[in-house]
Amino acid sequence: MPKIQAPKGTRDFYPDDLLKRRYLERLWRDTSIRHGFEEIDGPAFEHADLYKVKSGEGILAEMFGVFSGKAAEDLDRVRQTGEAPFALRPEFTPTLARMYAARAGALPKPTKWFWMQNCFRAERPQRGRLREFGQWNCDVMGGDGRLADKEALAVMRGILDEAGLTAHDLSININSRQVTQALMREAGVPDASHAAFLGFLDGSAKRSPADNERRLHEIGVAVQVASRFGSIVQEFASAHRSGNQEWETRLAGTDIERIHDVLRDQDLQQGRPWIVLDPEIVRGLAYYTGMVFEVIAEGERAVAGGGRYDNLIELFGGPPTPAVGFGMGDAVLSLLLEDKGLMPDATRAMECLSRLPASYRPEGFVFAAGDEAQPRVRPLVAELRRGRASEAWRNRSDRKPWDADRYAACGVRPMHARHSYKATRNIGKLLQDAAAQRARFAVILENEHEATLKDLDTGSQDTTRTPIDRVPAELARRLTPA
Amino acid sequence: MPKIQAPKGTRDFYPDDLLKRRYLERLWRDTSIRHGFEEIDGPAFEHADLYKVKSGEGILAEMFGVFSGKAAEDLDRVRQTGEAPFALRPEFTPTLARMYAARAGALPKPTKWFWMQNCFRAERPQRGRLREFGQWNCDVMGGDGRLADKEALAVMRGILDEAGLTAHDLSININSRQVTQALMREAGVPDASHAAFLGFLDGSAKRSPADNERRLHEIGVAVQVASRFGSIVQEFASAHRSGNQEWETRLAGTDIERIHDVLRDQDLQQGRPWIVLDPEIVRGLAYYTGMVFEVIAEGERAVAGGGRYDNLIELFGGPPTPAVGFGMGDAVLSLLLEDKGLMPDATRAMECLSRLPASYRPEGFVFAAGDEAQPRVRPLVAELRRGRASEAWRNRSDRKPWDADRYAACGVRPMHARHSYKATRNIGKLLQDAAAQRARFAVILENEHEATLKDLDTGSQDTTRTPIDRVPAELARRLTPA
Repeated sequence: MPKIQAPKGTRDFYPDDLLKRRYLERLWRDTSIRHGFEEIDGPAFEHADLYKVKSGEGILAEMFGVFSGKAAEDLDRVRQTGEAPFALRPEFTPTLARMYAARAGALPKPTKWFWMQNCFRAERPQRGRLREFGQWNCDVMGGDGRLADKEALAVMRGILDEAGLTAHDLSININSRQVTQALMREAGVPDASHAAFLGFLDGSAKRSPADNERRLHEIGVAVQVASRFGSIVQEFASAHRSGNQEWETRLAGTDIERIHDVLRDQDLQQGRPWIVLDPEIVRGLAYYTGMVFEVIAEGERAVAGGGRYDNLIELFGGPPTPAVGFGMGDAVLSLLLEDKGLMPDATRAMECLSRLPASYRPEGFVFAAGDEAQPRVRPLVAELRRGRASEAWRNRSDRKPWDADRYAACGVRPMHARHSYKATRNIGKLLQDAAAQRARFAVILENEHEATLKDLDTGSQDTTRTPIDRVPAELARRLTPA
Repeated sequence: MPKIQAPKGTRDFYPDDLLKRRYLERLWRDTSIRHGFEEIDGPAFEHADLYKVKSGEGILAEMFGVFSGKAAEDLDRVRQTGEAPFALRPEFTPTLARMYAARAGALPKPTKWFWMQNCFRAERPQRGRLREFGQWNCDVMGGDGRLADKEALAVMRGILDEAGLTAHDLSININSRQVTQALMREAGVPDASHAAFLGFLDGSAKRSPADNERRLHEIGVAVQVASRFGSIVQEFASAHRSGNQEWETRLAGTDIERIHDVLRDQDLQQGRPWIVLDPEIVRGLAYYTGMVFEVIAEGERAVAGGGRYDNLIELFGGPPTPAVGFGMGDAVLSLLLEDKGLMPDATRAMECLSRLPASYRPEGFVFAAGDEAQPRVRPLVAELRRGRASEAWRNRSDRKPWDADRYAACGVRPMHARHSYKATRNIGKLLQDAAAQRARFAVILENEHEATLKDLDTGSQDTTRTPIDRVPAELARRLTPA
């Protein structure tokens, strides 16, 4: 009998391979949980129509059809239309939108979900691109959109930090489709061609000039217009780099100010800034409406990508719900970590996997007792989630992210921290919120400098105040079983 | 736009649902690891031909076809033959056999693998039966077949124990196809019809008499012969219950003695015996060659099922390799745990998931320094893997498997324990084996009563001897970080 191989573009994971995959998944899951995301899952195959709503041509052209071999009507449909009733999920966002829409009324605002499973695309397999690949998604639906953008970027940066990657290895390039569309208008791209032109831009750098010309012709955009658009983008990028404010006015009516707000965010940009404006980023999926972003490492495909999709949940029958999210695949991330010496061998991976996972219960729930302390809430939450690597570890030239001493001694391990999304300053109500989210400790910022801790399991509250910058170490100490 | 639903027979997991699913997976993974199994994975879809090798008609009739929407030749094939080039995996064993065969020369004997992912069957959805469902597989390939049978049953019993199920809730019913075939011969079933008759027997109790008669006719077995076979099975079952030895002779040439060996095994049967002979069990898959078994709970479909498949790996191009394995689905197990009050709510599941997982490194590697101690090796390994619930917990009437005090105080938590499969008594070689398997402690049984512990990380070996029955507590103490 001839040996049957695995389908091309799929992988067999022998034990040592799987340990590395589980290491990545552990990073994904632990980081998501510490940032207050909850895990969900949906079917591996969906009605093919689900992807026709708004995923765009790129996705539709690369789907695997699925049909029941038992149902004659399924087979008839394939024979007659060439299309299968079901498709292997090429991405998770349509399932997420369907699930959110089905229960929108009962879900909190914001709802923060993560998801980790495989996706499937009938692409030509190449480096970093497979037909079955692992993907991690994080999405924030509802609530304050500006905050949600930052939360999505923060959890994404969190995983890169935890994996040992730095701003020397990659950058997070952001843009807004609203900005891109304003630039299209300046260049004279007809309004009716905006969506198609966005589709054209994604990947245009990888296509031949002839191929690009052919596509422009198809979508009814003159080559001169496209060329003018390219020049305007360069002009904008260069003005942005030199701090020229004139563009703020030209881009009025777009979310350019929100993009600048992200670029200025201290928590997201701490250390060497990772996040840069890149007006050439548009992303391929048809449903993005505002901010879009990509994690870019030299010589590799995008490590992650995402954006804001404010209309998608409504399209799936839910209420109007602003939303933002991203996906990160395991294939490119694995290549990058291997290249940088940041992928543990099987023995190291076993050690990591045998350690205590992130706490599903929030360990610290932070809120301010008054307005003056409010600006300290998010930075403290960010610090708790990040942890603080020990000095001994930071000074080691051969340090690796999985070293047991990374957060030992004078370091502070990363924790699961949350803050309230409620506008109230009523401490009783905020404590109820903490309890409803099953938090272990409430961290009450009494003023700009001091906090008190309340153990929500025992109900005992400190009378002494802890300086805010010592809260992470103090909370870690209280959480360690005696 | 009409709302698009999830395909029937699939599930959406919202956060609280997923916590329960992750709780089951955690039980599966931790128990597998503690029993020395290593995790693997393969593609979610395979070439459809992979399942034609030996999975049998039942599986083939319920496959989901998969084809690339991009490949014209794929679609042509579906149109012309009604068959897709790929299929969603209806079961994992063919992938496992393919993977084992591809690397057989480099793999240890035995090779112990586990796997946890979803499978897909185009069945009519009903209670405990879904079109996409989670499955846990454990397989032992190569090595001593008798021991392998027991190892498969032990890890399966291990998960049931850990989940809080007891012999009051279910039984493990075993049989052998060799025995069934000997009984077929006695009844006069033609040799050429044996395989088809096995297929007929699986599920015959659920079909109408008319349907059964029609099927018998199709496979060329007379109704009287089938009826005689039924009587012989009853006669054998009743003789077995009354301890009648005559059948041993009539079944000479089969593996009946191996089945009895399993039934007598002290480690497998400790407490109220779970494992019973049930000559009506044959299992549906076409590749089983010897022992077959099912975990049966009243009023539910089989919780788990498996058996010995000694020819399958060779069929996939590997060397002749005896093998045994089983699968357990999440759907029936969930229903059973919910019914028995053994499924944690989301808060309890969060607590369990936040605890220390099983150690991927073997914590104890047990071997005997001489022949007299050899019989103590496997019972000690079994005890280490099982742990010992605390008396306080056992005395609680409201005890639950997830209680934090289950293994606290005077209890001993379950550990990852292994023994050597090598025949040698050379201690140096056995220590090398322990080190090669990355074990933390070697447990050297010096004689029938005493052991010494050697810390393989520091190289320090005890001079004092520990009574064997105190090894679990002592090892747990040594492993706890100071």
